[in-house]
Amino acid sequence: MIDYDALLKISYGVYAVCSGNSKKGNGFISNSIMQITSDPVQVAVTCNKKNYSAEIIADSGMLAISVLPQNVSSDVISIFGYKSGREIDKLKRFNVRYGINDVPVLLSDAIATLECKVKETIDAGTHLIFLCEVLEANLLDSESDPITYDYYRKVKKGVSPANAPTYINPLKKQKTMEPTKYRCPICGYEYDDSEHDIPFEALDDDWGCPVCGATKDMFEKI
Amino acid sequence: MIDYDALLKISYGVYAVCSGNSKKGNGFISNSIMQITSDPVQVAVTCNKKNYSAEIIADSGMLAISVLPQNVSSDVISIFGYKSGREIDKLKRFNVRYGINDVPVLLSDAIATLECKVKETIDAGTHLIFLCEVLEANLLDSESDPITYDYYRKVKKGVSPANAPTYINPLKKQKTMEPTKYRCPICGYEYDDSEHDIPFEALDDDWGCPVCGATKDMFEKI
Repeated sequence: MIDYDALLKISYGVYAVCSGNSKKGNGFISNSIMQITSDPVQVAVTCNKKNYSAEIIADSGMLAISVLPQNVSSDVISIFGYKSGREIDKLKRFNVRYGINDVPVLLSDAIATLECKVKETIDAGTHLIFLCEVLEANLLDSESDPITYDYYRKVKKGVSPANAPTYINPLKKQKTMEPTKYRCPICGYEYDDSEHDIPFEALDDDWGCPVCGATKDMFEKI
Repeated sequence: MIDYDALLKISYGVYAVCSGNSKKGNGFISNSIMQITSDPVQVAVTCNKKNYSAEIIADSGMLAISVLPQNVSSDVISIFGYKSGREIDKLKRFNVRYGINDVPVLLSDAIATLECKVKETIDAGTHLIFLCEVLEANLLDSESDPITYDYYRKVKKGVSPANAPTYINPLKKQKTMEPTKYRCPICGYEYDDSEHDIPFEALDDDWGCPVCGATKDMFEKI
């Protein structure tokens, strides 16, 4: 038996992972990053195979991790976490520098950045694990605390979209629940119960639209 | 250039990872665990090749993760984190149940436990990554917060031993420093500067021996 609430006791940070180069690049929000070895410094980064970034990382063999702070802007979360790079150019909206092998490195909000070369790609089913060597690591803000995934969920009222490794299908958790969709009247963002690990009705009252910030009570059932 | 302080901005939890069976088992402290996929539920667990647990996990193909709370006892940290299973039987000192395929599951202090079957072992140099399917997940304490690695370092004054993925060799960080050893007069525990990511002199004044709790000022330079 799997109690999905047990999985929520695993701790993570929240990161923007950028890839590609100055001609074609993209970025996504990840919570599944960890250091694997210290000599050489290697990290593992997990990415859903369906993500546009999975293609870009495979093509370029490089990625850059930006550690986000507790006070990360909703712009960074909404654009990198809730928009697809197949539809919009995410990087041009933010402060980005191009580092080793022309990899884009998100500087907006970042408190630390790591430029990484992919050494091995492990197929884990729905997701890929990129085992990377860290070639460059910079601390940009020693004072700010990194945002943890727990803080993101509890304080920022964030949830995991269906592509995240930590996504919990609410239909698995509560088989009796009927999934429905809700639409933001301001920006058109749709919250589909079947694609989030918390059903809309169970979200806290002070939850807001991840794209435009509209309040929960403004959403319309569709 | 690698600024090792940038790596400390990556967030982790702290876990006891047990393996083997009721005849021969062991456990170690890990901070490098993350969920990789949600369907099926898979996690990645990192272990130094030199750890006794690496052999036991390879033999048994099973491991169990216990999520530790902020108020984890110093016994769990000192025995699982600072003793080798080649020398002592760690499991007999604690409350352990035997789960799927007879895998030992640490219950002492645990707020959640995951019983995992190793599906793939990835060689990452000094460390192995075990990609595991979670067969059983139990929440034992929904109220307690899991201890984060940041909390372990800042509040509990914990440091990474040389076998940890997040270990930082102080000689790399500060090339001018001369490594020395310090011995606890109570239990004989030796703090070797070259095996910790913080040199002894730089430890906070309220740091204590990880084995017996003796205060820093009691340690003798050897």
